Amino acid sequence: MQEKKIKVGIIGLGGRGVGLMEGVLLKLSDIEITAVCDLYEDRVENGAKMTFDACGKRPMVTTDYREVLKNPDVEAVIISSAWESHIKIAIDAMRAKKPVGVEVGGAYSIKQLWDLVDVYEETKTPIMMLENVCYGQAELMVLNMVKKGLFGEIVHCKGGYQHDLRNEVANGVENRHYRLCNYLNRNCENYPTHEIGPIARILDINYGNRMLTLNSVASKSVGLHEYIKNHKSDDEKLMNARVAQGDVVTTIIKCARGETITITLNTTLPRSYSRGLEINGTKGMYVADTNSIILDDGEEYWRVQRDTADKYKEKYEHPIWKKQLEEGLVGYHGGMDGLVLSAFFDSVRNGTPMPIDVYDMVSWMCISVLSEQSIAMGGAPVAIPDFTNGAWMAREYKAEGFYALK
Amino acid sequence: MQEKKIKVGIIGLGGRGVGLMEGVLLKLSDIEITAVCDLYEDRVENGAKMTFDACGKRPMVTTDYREVLKNPDVEAVIISSAWESHIKIAIDAMRAKKPVGVEVGGAYSIKQLWDLVDVYEETKTPIMMLENVCYGQAELMVLNMVKKGLFGEIVHCKGGYQHDLRNEVANGVENRHYRLCNYLNRNCENYPTHEIGPIARILDINYGNRMLTLNSVASKSVGLHEYIKNHKSDDEKLMNARVAQGDVVTTIIKCARGETITITLNTTLPRSYSRGLEINGTKGMYVADTNSIILDDGEEYWRVQRDTADKYKEKYEHPIWKKQLEEGLVGYHGGMDGLVLSAFFDSVRNGTPMPIDVYDMVSWMCISVLSEQSIAMGGAPVAIPDFTNGAWMAREYKAEGFYALK
Repeated sequence: MQEKKIKVGIIGLGGRGVGLMEGVLLKLSDIEITAVCDLYEDRVENGAKMTFDACGKRPMVTTDYREVLKNPDVEAVIISSAWESHIKIAIDAMRAKKPVGVEVGGAYSIKQLWDLVDVYEETKTPIMMLENVCYGQAELMVLNMVKKGLFGEIVHCKGGYQHDLRNEVANGVENRHYRLCNYLNRNCENYPTHEIGPIARILDINYGNRMLTLNSVASKSVGLHEYIKNHKSDDEKLMNARVAQGDVVTTIIKCARGETITITLNTTLPRSYSRGLEINGTKGMYVADTNSIILDDGEEYWRVQRDTADKYKEKYEHPIWKKQLEEGLVGYHGGMDGLVLSAFFDSVRNGTPMPIDVYDMVSWMCISVLSEQSIAMGGAPVAIPDFTNGAWMAREYKAEGFYALK
Repeated sequence: MQEKKIKVGIIGLGGRGVGLMEGVLLKLSDIEITAVCDLYEDRVENGAKMTFDACGKRPMVTTDYREVLKNPDVEAVIISSAWESHIKIAIDAMRAKKPVGVEVGGAYSIKQLWDLVDVYEETKTPIMMLENVCYGQAELMVLNMVKKGLFGEIVHCKGGYQHDLRNEVANGVENRHYRLCNYLNRNCENYPTHEIGPIARILDINYGNRMLTLNSVASKSVGLHEYIKNHKSDDEKLMNARVAQGDVVTTIIKCARGETITITLNTTLPRSYSRGLEINGTKGMYVADTNSIILDDGEEYWRVQRDTADKYKEKYEHPIWKKQLEEGLVGYHGGMDGLVLSAFFDSVRNGTPMPIDVYDMVSWMCISVLSEQSIAMGGAPVAIPDFTNGAWMAREYKAEGFYALK
């Protein structure tokens, strides 16, 4: 089996890149890391050392990702660099014929997303967005139940990236972290794909449905500045910085089949982590925060239900998760990281369609730049491009995984 | 004390009017019902009988509310008629110098709300919106904590009227109920005040703050029709009726001080009842559905918290509720009905300002008609009128109740 290992280059070795290495990449027996790359030399060196310590081989080290793409000893690349570099590197990787897995983040222009589609259609180099939450245990169980029709016709979904990131963002200079720069300069739904990904699967987005328009409205921006005042008052530059990013951004998306999706970004106020998934259909509802499912049984529910989702686990746990639970979880974020990377490498190895393809990727990533436009225009409706140029009406999902059980 | 009883006329004896009589009006010792009115004679007769059975006196009966307003034996009126009649009757009541309590509902035009303000400013007849949820136990405890600064600067609030009304709406013909007519013809946030009322108090709306704009987007409308198909298939007219009302309406409101408010109407899908109140501030959060409060203590909360609100009850229970719990709850909806009506009658008796005044009423009621406009225009931003003509910047709250403890 040794000769069949996929040789992987990893580009971007900040917190996420190191997490992926530690949590998954250095543990998977069917891949090996042959190149590590970051703009910072200390990070590259750290990545090389981690690899050597785990496997006894020193990978190629470079601060120029183009060197990774030129290396014949690299058969696939993972991009876990700063948000704003994802698309450019992904385009270059496709041109270099390296199958590419791209970490999550939003887009900065619609043009760059069309470029990504164009280069994919030209080169057909496999590309996958590594949206780990699509592989969440609850998300997959609910998807399974939706596809079996238990919730009836789906009408409305909610999601959120609700995560107190004040410490991470405010320490952005020390951490050399791209998030600070984004929070200081942009006001948008800056991290939409954790919510949109699972919901897009539930609503068949790009497979018979598509997102048509969105409206976004941002609250004032006070949480991060107050945090800086209380925790970083010695940093004069940061103390005087204007934070552009509103604390809470609410976005409403309308779909071609008439469903609405509401997503909330809430990352600079004290709170508990929650992705706030909710699904409303003509036959039932699911609410993640209360772990509850109500299926229409004629009863009146006057109280919020709790943990009524548990009783559906035995019957509707997604096959991916049944297998995963038997074999043991891999990687951080409750096993999602291991699942999403394994799905990518399986598709590379077998030459099968990517479970989260270029059209998924661009239709999910465009939410951030379009929300920026809508917020700037008082929540005005903004059109969401059809990156499939009409193909969504008849496309069929052919990858393994999500719909395999349909 | 007998001679000091306030003589009350009640206009509108459908479900809500009868509920108010049974639950509160016939139980309060300091008022008496001297007139009952409804468009339907059987309802009037029922109201008269209920009154006689409870007090031994038969009230005036009429199907014309103007007769109630002419009756010198009526000192105050309660309006619990169909939504679309509230404003007209309230205006006539103010002109007749009868202090008037108006049940909840939304508006149908901005013009009628300006008329209400004009007539109030001309006559100064006391008017109060009977928004019972402003007197909810959780809502008042949280308001108390907000005013004491425990949540820091408030940035974002959420609320919802999430209540499976399919049975009530679909049986509208039998029930002679105005809701069906609204659901068949209008697509809007048709019931905004249960959420907006408590949130308006939290955000000082009309007292140093105001709501500036809103954006509303509606989902498709399938829940009610599916219910009719399954439960009322013998009613051909209803089976063929087009339901205009979207199942889920999401509205985002932006305030002058920069806060956002998101409210959700969700009344034609199977679900548990929830008003979904959430408060996000720079020092903490409150979530009603999980009964949780998190105050910023430097800890990272990776899990949704549950019932952490309970520990604040002893210290922060609102004085109104402490008193109420000692004296016993009156009326339906967990005591809120008794509180809101008592607050109205207290103000009538003492000549003190109404706790929920005409400016509150119109700024809350306008959400429905403005959401109708925004939905029709793809969620375009719609301006919310300043019904105070600038007075909101310096107005001080002088009524008893909400802010008494400031």
